[in-house]
Order: sequence, then structure tokens, then C-alpha cells
Amino acid sequence: MANTPVAVIAGLGSGSGTGAAAARLLAKEGYAIALIARGADSLKALADEINAAGGTAAPFPVSSYNTTDINTAYAQIRAHYQGQPIRVALYNATHPIWKPFLDITPDDVETVTETNIEGAFAFSKNVIQSFQANEVDEKGKRGSLIFTGATASVRGNVTTSAFSAGKHALRALSQSLAKEFGKQNIHVSHAIIDGGILTNSSRKRRNDPEWEQNEDVRLAPDGIAETYLHLVKQPRSTWTWELDLRPAHEKW
Amino acid sequence: MANTPVAVIAGLGSGSGTGAAAARLLAKEGYAIALIARGADSLKALADEINAAGGTAAPFPVSSYNTTDINTAYAQIRAHYQGQPIRVALYNATHPIWKPFLDITPDDVETVTETNIEGAFAFSKNVIQSFQANEVDEKGKRGSLIFTGATASVRGNVTTSAFSAGKHALRALSQSLAKEFGKQNIHVSHAIIDGGILTNSSRKRRNDPEWEQNEDVRLAPDGIAETYLHLVKQPRSTWTWELDLRPAHEKW
Amino acid sequence: MANTPVAVIAGLGSGSGTGAAAARLLAKEGYAIALIARGADSLKALADEINAAGGTAAPFPVSSYNTTDINTAYAQIRAHYQGQPIRVALYNATHPIWKPFLDITPDDVETVTETNIEGAFAFSKNVIQSFQANEVDEKGKRGSLIFTGATASVRGNVTTSAFSAGKHALRALSQSLAKEFGKQNIHVSHAIIDGGILTNSSRKRRNDPEWEQNEDVRLAPDGIAETYLHLVKQPRSTWTWELDLRPAHEKW
Amino acid sequence: MANTPVAVIAGLGSGSGTGAAAARLLAKEGYAIALIARGADSLKALADEINAAGGTAAPFPVSSYNTTDINTAYAQIRAHYQGQPIRVALYNATHPIWKPFLDITPDDVETVTETNIEGAFAFSKNVIQSFQANEVDEKGKRGSLIFTGATASVRGNVTTSAFSAGKHALRALSQSLAKEFGKQNIHVSHAIIDGGILTNSSRKRRNDPEWEQNEDVRLAPDGIAETYLHLVKQPRSTWTWELDLRPAHEKW
Repeated sequence: MANTPVAVIAGLGSGSGTGAAAARLLAKEGYAIALIARGADSLKALADEINAAGGTAAPFPVSSYNTTDINTAYAQIRAHYQGQPIRVALYNATHPIWKPFLDITPDDVETVTETNIEGAFAFSKNVIQSFQANEVDEKGKRGSLIFTGATASVRGNVTTSAFSAGKHALRALSQSLAKEFGKQNIHVSHAIIDGGILTNSSRKRRNDPEWEQNEDVRLAPDGIAETYLHLVKQPRSTWTWELDLRPAHEKW
Repeated sequence: MANTPVAVIAGLGSGSGTGAAAARLLAKEGYAIALIARGADSLKALADEINAAGGTAAPFPVSSYNTTDINTAYAQIRAHYQGQPIRVALYNATHPIWKPFLDITPDDVETVTETNIEGAFAFSKNVIQSFQANEVDEKGKRGSLIFTGATASVRGNVTTSAFSAGKHALRALSQSLAKEFGKQNIHVSHAIIDGGILTNSSRKRRNDPEWEQNEDVRLAPDGIAETYLHLVKQPRSTWTWELDLRPAHEKW
Repeated sequence: MANTPVAVIAGLGSGSGTGAAAARLLAKEGYAIALIARGADSLKALADEINAAGGTAAPFPVSSYNTTDINTAYAQIRAHYQGQPIRVALYNATHPIWKPFLDITPDDVETVTETNIEGAFAFSKNVIQSFQANEVDEKGKRGSLIFTGATASVRGNVTTSAFSAGKHALRALSQSLAKEFGKQNIHVSHAIIDGGILTNSSRKRRNDPEWEQNEDVRLAPDGIAETYLHLVKQPRSTWTWELDLRPAHEKW
Repeated sequence: MANTPVAVIAGLGSGSGTGAAAARLLAKEGYAIALIARGADSLKALADEINAAGGTAAPFPVSSYNTTDINTAYAQIRAHYQGQPIRVALYNATHPIWKPFLDITPDDVETVTETNIEGAFAFSKNVIQSFQANEVDEKGKRGSLIFTGATASVRGNVTTSAFSAGKHALRALSQSLAKEFGKQNIHVSHAIIDGGILTNSSRKRRNDPEWEQNEDVRLAPDGIAETYLHLVKQPRSTWTWELDLRPAHEKW
């Protein structure tokens, strides 16, 4: 067990979305999973589910994505999985806000900023330092750090002033990291999720069985996770920084 | 005087750069100028200079670009120029940081965030509300809001993780505002300054007379201001959201 | 007259659009105008109009934008304005096709290619060589070459497979030229026209007086020409390669 | 055999690059391979190699990428693999030219155009029509069409005026097709290969064993092929249009 590589995933929502799907898939691939998110209950439920299925996972709940909370959680992860190399990290925390600009409050701005910038910088710093301590693996990599982006990562729009500001910032961070640490064999990627994802909360919000069942019109977390796994497995000669993902029938 | 339109400029550095050049040019064009920046002394010096040259200007120093400070300064501007329409606004505040990622501190992240996001949102909210109160002018415009961007607005790089995160966010804000408020005849623009600008501080930092004198290799604040004025004058049928600016010999 | 600078404009449509507006404005600014386009009649009419208004213009009709025809027309221009420096060039030729992909014929592809690639390369080669023979002027420039782009220059869409292929190619050419010849003080720009332009043909096609009269919803050729003139006048320290132009109320 | 799906690959170079690697990998995955390229000998050699290894492949040499030659080759493929569904297509033909702009000849422009536009349109038309005749497979797809792009697909540069014009056009075509045919469950992708690829010709041209052996500094065709296969396998809910690929140590 001492050598089992660890995957750290930040941002799990209610445990039915992209982060959770990535956690399940990486657990099946043999990674020990560390889960960071708000919502201790759903976090624990996801860890329990993975452990019950024969995987290894532990929850590290945070009350916010500020630097202190992220640093604390990351230190706990290092202690919990002591001696095991952290090889994969996914920053999936998000805080979508669709509001007319004049309705955006300073609190909205602060939350968007904390989730997409402060938390992302703190998380990345911990992760990069972990990766630097690793040997290059058989794929030629010290580690893979993936960021989940959105349409708003590349386009501001009428109700996304705050959301797109945060997502653009996150994308810039990911590109800077990819360029700075590629030469240390640290692979940083950014995925632009361009469409609605089927999760418990989107299910509830939309209440539209047709949308749920039609795989052509919404993203499935499992599909996103498969592509993330592909990124993790890309060999040193062929790395992707950015890709987009959308359902077949999406209008874009 | 009651009808003299007002131009509000935030971000003046030491009074020798883009903001100051825009202030001087807009003063010559007949705008009453409101100057927002840290550095009360250089702010007052610039206002004095503009007033001495026959223009109208007043300084509104802030100690930071946080929401409270921006709101306070803006309220002072409204009181000072009571009854005069605010027609032009330039958000030129910046906080360039070139550092390896692992040297970026939480304070760096906070300053970048405050300058490019918190302050920009607060400034924009005040400006948009001022513009909404204006009649459409003879060019078909309620007002022009310009943001100064940088190469880092569109590209993260090895030493710009923090700087480019802030600048990407600012660009996203500008695009969202352009899309949301164009239909209210509010013109929002974003200028990507892609090269070194000749200012007192770059002069001192570089200490390179050849660079100073060679207009082909560095940007002149006056040239940037001329293009900003062109944006302000564009008629309702022909608005630019984004343009880039660089010296003739810049490698890009 | 021997020193009067010449502006060469290729692509005039029926003489009521962007090219014609640029021709009229540059004539007023003191340039001798050379007009290249198909449609000898409307070309002559425009030249006559400019001459009657006190300007100087001459038509150089072509039957296509292939290399031979462009080279021939350009040689005629050089002979006609012998000894006068060619200082401004506008490549405005276009061939918009909106068609489902499967309806695009090899002829469509060929026409799009000829207009946006073959003709643009031939035109640019002549222009660059003319500019290289010029002295640097008081603005620090040997010449300004402007390309008219479109939304399709930066985005392919469901009915623009051919049109956007051509426009993307033209944009790539303009960027390559800007980078290669900036250091020779040759200024190359690209304008993304993102919206419908009011011309005789769009007037006829739409037959919508409300659209014609509402300056907020369509571009005016004169406004585009004003921005082109601004590009021509930008000093060596502050050049724009690319900008977008759209009416105030455009949805984008 | 009647049901074995077919993969058509256009653009094989000397049989040691991306197209050949994709052919080998898709053959292993069970596709019958159709190879289109100039160079009948290396084409036959590759087909022989695949057949000898237990796969199925047939060469369809062309003398150019013009419409007629592509249509002829495609008709031969349909006849050869009669009754088998064409499920995968890769357009990998390219014609890189790095030359100062003034050295670009009309022939260069024509070849770039033929390879990236004329041939690509003809190939795509055949492929889309083949895909439309297919049933949706278990992944929710009628077919996958992949285009190989390059750095020049998204950036013009000092020696890439012709090459980037062609590559930008190809990218525009791929985006238009992705948007138009996604709703018919046809998956179109574009890969930006951002770096040097290890092939027989780059080996010979560089003559640099260090470069060959260092997997961190050059792309491997096999790695590209793995990512192409991932695109082919993406389920209907999670499709990538565009991704980039570069070696770990690439400076970008």
C-alpha cells in the first residue's frame, strides 16, 4: 500500500458530478483517493461508497476554499497517505453565478474569487510541490493536474460577468502552470466543459426527464472522467493542455 | 460648466503613463477629469498640471482598490461634479507581478485580485449606473468604459500565473459588460497593450536611453491615449470591443 | 502632385460599402485613390464621383482576383501613379457564401479561395514591395495594409464552412505579415466586421427600412472607414493589428 | 467481414508519421484501413505491413489532393470495401512551408490551398455522406472525422504566411462541420500538433540523435494516434472538438 499513488480531488458538489465520477474511476484504476469539498456528509458518503466498492478513499471536508482551509486539508491528506506519492490532482471546485451585472454583489465576487483564484492557487501550490517530490513514472510524468473549466472560461456573456471572470482566471493559471512546469514533467490540463452536466442538482433544477435520458443533449460525468483519465495516461511526448467537451447535439 | 461631461480615470501610476496621458488628452477634448489612484501626491500633481494647462481635474486618492474605497471615491466624484454627466471611464489600475509560481504569495494573489477583480467590479458598477442615467449623445452613446489589458490578458506564461489570472478576469468582465450593456448604448472596450510602455518607472527600471528614444520598440502613453479617444468617438454603428496595441518592432 | 501618396483599395462591391467609404475618406485626406474590383461600371462611377468632389481616383477593373489579374492591375496602378508613393492599401475583396456544407460546390470553394487567398497573397506581395521602397514617414511608417475580416474570420459555423475557411486564411496571412514586416515599419491590420453592413445590396436584400434607419443595429461603411483611417494614422509606437467592429445593439 | 468498419486515412507522408501510426492502431482496433496519399510505394508498403501484421489495409494512391483525385480515390475505397460502413476518417494531409513571405510563389499558395482546402472539402464531403448512411453505433455515433492541425492553425508567424493560411482554413472547416453535423451524431475533431513529430523525414532533416531519443522534446506518432483513438471512442455525451498536443518540455 505504501506505494499506491494518490489522487486528490477538490470540488465534489453533492457527489454526483464530475469530481465524483473522476474519483470513482481513478479508484478503479488503483489510485487512493483524497476528497476535498464543502459538505462533509456527501463527502463522507462518497468515500464510503468508494471504499465499499473495494477502492480506497478518505474525505477532507473544508468550510471554504480560502488558502488556510486548503492548506489545512492538504496537510491532512499528506499525513493520511504518508509515504504515498500524490500523482493526480483535479481542481473541480466551481461556483457558477448567472446574474445580470448590476445584481452581482461584493459577496458574489468574493466567492467566485475565492473558489477560482485563491483556492486554486493554494491547491496548485501544494500539488506542484508534491509532484516535484515524485520520481518520473513510466509514462514520463511526475504528476497530472487537471482543471475543470466551462464555456465561461473562454467567453464572457450577458449574465456571466462574475462567473467568467473567475473561470478566465483559472484558465490563465492552468496555462501558466502548464508552461512553467512542463519542463519538470508535470502535466497540467484544462478542460472546457461546454454544456449542461447531468448531476443530482441539475436533475432537480431542470426536472426534465427527456433531458436526463437523452445522452445527446447533456454531458455525463462518467464521460468527462474517461477523458480526464486519458489525460492522466498521455505519455510525455504527447500532452494536451486544453480540450473542450460537449454533447453531440449541443449548439455552440 | 454644469453640462461639461466628466471622464473618470482609475489607475494613474506615478502620473506618467497611460492613465495620465488619457487624462491630459480628455481634458483637452473638454472633459472634466476625475482621477482615482493610490499615491495622493502624484495624483494631486497631475490634477494641478491639468488645471494649470487650462483643463479641469480633481484628485480622488484611494488607499486600495477594494469595494469600499472605490465606492467612497466614486461618491466623492459625483458630489464634486454634481449635475455633470459622467461620460467616459477608464479602468487602468494594474498590478503586474512577474514571479515563478512557487514564489507567489497569498498577498500577491490578493493584490492582483483586488486590483483586477474587486476594484474593477466596484468601479464598473458605479460607472454603468452613471451611464444609465445619461441621455444618448450625438454619437449614439450613453458612455464609454475602457479597460486597459496586457499581453497577459490573453496568454498565461511561465512567470505570469498571478498577473495573467487577474488580467484574464478583467478581460472577461469587459466582454460581459460589452455584451450586456451594448443594447443600452453603453460602449465597453478592452485594449491589449502588448509591449513595454515608456513611463517614469520603466525609464528608471530599464535605464536604457536607446530604448527610451527608439519609438519603434516601446509604447508611448500618448499614442495609447489617442486610440482610447478614437474608441470614445466611435459612433453607435461601429464600436470596437477589443484591439491590441504594440510598437512597430515588437516581436510577438 | 508627384508626391501625393496613393491608396490602393481592392474590393468595392457595388460602390456603396466599406471599400467605397474608405476610398472617399482617404481621398478627402489627400490620397490619390486606385480602385481595384470586378464591375468596371460601378468602379468608374466611384472614381468619377471622387474626382468630381475634388479628389483624385482611377479605376483598375479586374475580371477575377487571380494572381495574373491582380498583378496586371497593380502594374497599371504603378504606371498610372508613376513616381507617387503607395502608402495605404486595403484588401476588402470578399465572397460571402452561406450554405449548408453539402451544397458547397467545388466552384464555391475555388471562388472563396481565389478571393481570400490567391488574390490576397498577390495583392499583399505587390503592396509590401511598394511599401519597402518608401521612406519612413513622419508617423514612422512605410505604409499601412488593412484587411477586412468578418465574424467568420474567427469562428466557423453551420453555414460558413467555405466562407470561414477563406476568412480564417486571410486573417492568418494578415497576422503573419504584421509579424514579419512590423520591423520594417510596415503596419498590417485586420478588422473583424461583426454584423451586417448597410450597403446598396444589403438594403435591397433585406428590404427593411427599420433596419436601415436604426444605426444601433447595422454597421455604417463611413464608421468603418473612420476606424481604418485611425489605423492609418497610428504612430510607430502604438500599432493595432486586430480590432472588432459591430453596432451597439449587436448580439454576440 | 461485411460488417467490419472502415477507417479512411488521407495523408501518410513517407509512412512513418501520424497517419501511419493511426492506421496501425486503428487496424489493431479492428478497422479495415483505406490509405490515401501521394507516393504509391510507401503507401503500398504500409498496407502490406498492416496486412502482414494481421490487419486489413489497402492503398489508394492519388497524384494530388484536388477534388477529382480525391473523389476518384474515395469511390475506389467504397467499391473496395463495398457494404462495409466507413466509421472513421482522418485528414492528415499537409504541406508545411516555412518561407519569408516574399519568397512564397503562386505555386506554393496553390499547393497549400489544394492540400488544406480543396482536398479537405472534397474528402469531408465524401466522408460526411458516408457517415450519414450509417446507423448510430453503440457509442452514439455515425462516424468520427479528425483533422490534424498545427501551431500554424491558430497563429500566423513570420515564415508561415502560406502554411498558416492553409491550416487556419482547415481549422475553420473542422469547426463548421462539428457544429453542422454534431446534431446528426457525426463527431468532428481538430488536433493542434504543437511541436516537432518524430518521423523518418524529421529524423533525416535534423540528424540529431539526442532529439530523437528524448521523448520530452518531440512528439511520437504513436502518442498522437492514442489520442485520436480516444476521440473516436468518446461517447455521444462527451465529445471534444479541439485539443492540443505537445511534448512535455515544449516551449510555447
